Amino acid sequence: MKATGVVVEYNPFHNGHLHHLNETKRKSGADLVIACMSGHFLQRGEPALASKWARTKMALSAGVDMVIELPYSFATQHAETFAKGSITLLHEIGCESFCFGSEDGEIDSFEDTVKLIHDNEHTYNSSIKHYVNEGLSYPAALSKAFNDLEGNNNMIDLSKPNNILGYHYMEARNEAAPNLKAFTITRESAGYHDEHFSSPSIASATSIRKNLFDPDQEESVINRYMPVTTLNILDEYRKEFGGYHRWESYWSLLQYKIISSSPSQLKEIYEIEEGIENRIIECAKGAFSFEDFMSRLKTKRYTWTRLQRMALHILTNTTKEGMNKTAAGPAYIRLLGMNQIGQEFLNTRKKSLNLPLISKLSSANREDIFLDIKSSEIYSLGLSSSESRKKLLRQEWSQPPIIIR
Amino acid sequence: MKATGVVVEYNPFHNGHLHHLNETKRKSGADLVIACMSGHFLQRGEPALASKWARTKMALSAGVDMVIELPYSFATQHAETFAKGSITLLHEIGCESFCFGSEDGEIDSFEDTVKLIHDNEHTYNSSIKHYVNEGLSYPAALSKAFNDLEGNNNMIDLSKPNNILGYHYMEARNEAAPNLKAFTITRESAGYHDEHFSSPSIASATSIRKNLFDPDQEESVINRYMPVTTLNILDEYRKEFGGYHRWESYWSLLQYKIISSSPSQLKEIYEIEEGIENRIIECAKGAFSFEDFMSRLKTKRYTWTRLQRMALHILTNTTKEGMNKTAAGPAYIRLLGMNQIGQEFLNTRKKSLNLPLISKLSSANREDIFLDIKSSEIYSLGLSSSESRKKLLRQEWSQPPIIIR
Repeated sequence: MKATGVVVEYNPFHNGHLHHLNETKRKSGADLVIACMSGHFLQRGEPALASKWARTKMALSAGVDMVIELPYSFATQHAETFAKGSITLLHEIGCESFCFGSEDGEIDSFEDTVKLIHDNEHTYNSSIKHYVNEGLSYPAALSKAFNDLEGNNNMIDLSKPNNILGYHYMEARNEAAPNLKAFTITRESAGYHDEHFSSPSIASATSIRKNLFDPDQEESVINRYMPVTTLNILDEYRKEFGGYHRWESYWSLLQYKIISSSPSQLKEIYEIEEGIENRIIECAKGAFSFEDFMSRLKTKRYTWTRLQRMALHILTNTTKEGMNKTAAGPAYIRLLGMNQIGQEFLNTRKKSLNLPLISKLSSANREDIFLDIKSSEIYSLGLSSSESRKKLLRQEWSQPPIIIR
Repeated sequence: MKATGVVVEYNPFHNGHLHHLNETKRKSGADLVIACMSGHFLQRGEPALASKWARTKMALSAGVDMVIELPYSFATQHAETFAKGSITLLHEIGCESFCFGSEDGEIDSFEDTVKLIHDNEHTYNSSIKHYVNEGLSYPAALSKAFNDLEGNNNMIDLSKPNNILGYHYMEARNEAAPNLKAFTITRESAGYHDEHFSSPSIASATSIRKNLFDPDQEESVINRYMPVTTLNILDEYRKEFGGYHRWESYWSLLQYKIISSSPSQLKEIYEIEEGIENRIIECAKGAFSFEDFMSRLKTKRYTWTRLQRMALHILTNTTKEGMNKTAAGPAYIRLLGMNQIGQEFLNTRKKSLNLPLISKLSSANREDIFLDIKSSEIYSLGLSSSESRKKLLRQEWSQPPIIIR
């Protein structure tokens, strides 16, 4: 059996993801698709709107054959570490290929770009440093440094978010799993961060979430952008847990955590550098909401995403020391769910896996999976009733992989 | 001018306090009464129901001439440190005497008891240790060890809460201010912890708070237990800040703090000893409310008060290191309010004070007063609207001493 992999967040699973899934199957010719999916917190430093269990159900219902979890220590990181974790896991579970969406859509351009940068590594890196010192944000500096290299016309545009991520997937592939075949698919219609609807059936997850969080919006507006299975699962989730998760529900906790911490305690948190701890404390004291806090905090030097990730690591109390423990690479594969094809595939692989497969949390090495447990505990605090919080917390411990037949 | 001192919490100021105040004036023959009052958090490890500013107004309206603040590092401590801080401050501001309420009511009994214990210090201390090791709580062990000493009939009953506190006032007086004259007044009618009303005009603060927090209670029931000035100030506070402060309003923050901390981080918190950090984490995960948490946590070994103080220091992130900085004794006198007599007295004293007098927070030594600022910031988070929180926080910085003419 041949498996291909995708790296996803499914926040929530929508028609764009369905398109990507079907194209992945078609292009790779694989027998099954395995999704490496972020858990409760995402790459942009925010909570997923519904739990990983609900999002696993969405994935399996739409045709994904197996879902494994990208641990907190990779899921909430800048592109390089995010890619390293996810590509390694897809390789370790036994994928022969993987497929990512990109603005560029041509895998050869990615290969050429990675090669060009690799061949000019020194110039490229010092040029990035130069632009960062000039005050540019890291992504802007990276894109500018890349433009300075004289590549051919076949290069990807490194100012586009999915191209950047794809670039890092390719780099991680070259480093960790050189035999893993790569595909890319042009992303349809909606840009990553678009907040408005511009296509009759495809919309960005951002615009869908914006609509879901807005109590004044009619549900029917977004129905056409998601499979009916997603709609049902979202509906169930809202009924079972009393609502979705969003940063604002964690704001009082974050503000309290910042206000009660000393600058030196904040400096122990992962990604808190360069004296920004003092600015964070000042901004938190005056802010009325998470949105307000972020707007006060934002400067040209830091991207919103990077600041949001700092806020997340503060919320989850993830220290530099705690994060560094997992820097070597994923230490386990946590299985979130599968269908029968996924199950058959897993049976062929089980004996040759290099990493422990975790189907039940209670049998996992607690020290390895510590950050995932703690972040799930804190994720549950974003629900409004203590009954819902306890239910979600219990699920983290007792939920076996979701099986769909 | 002759000043006498009282040590108070006024949570809230009621007729029992008024009686104590009038008796203090009568017995001491002093020209004015100075109250050393706990700030936003109290000796039993709980938030005051209204801010120190509101409670200062209650005190001045009822006839107290000056209110100074007992800092967090003394106000939220076991009796010995609480007494040391408050008696030292009353001495430093210039009182010639002080007066406390007690079940016993005879100052000679206190003098004799302190002397008996002092003369048998070694036996007494090893006997306390013995009973604690047998599993008794500290207050129970202390009372039992004392009974083992063969005193005369004139000894106080050290199983009574106000006698214990009084004993420590006397000890602190002997140590820090031997010339300070001591008086005691028999507490009227209501016991310290009574939850029910047993007298036509005097009720414990506990029973008054219980009633204030209960939305089903008619206000008129408690009106006769407090001066009308207190009633008006409470009413204003509720209108201005949207409600009173109670532990349950801080429960989500405390739970989050405990869940997000590692056992070794909790162990850095003041008073967290002997492995109780693990028990605290387990109890917090399963609890639905602060009350529920405390009931789960309670064992015979620890008094409710001691556990509640641990919870408070966790909430305010007060570490052993942070608390130890202030162990030497009060480093400043913070003036909360006064009337004209208080002002006249202060004018006679200002030049001879040994400790800096803080009338405006902005002119204080930040390092000294750090714990008071932080605990006020966290106290404000117990209010439900962010507008109220900001208003209370601003008050900490901008409120000059309250002057009543």
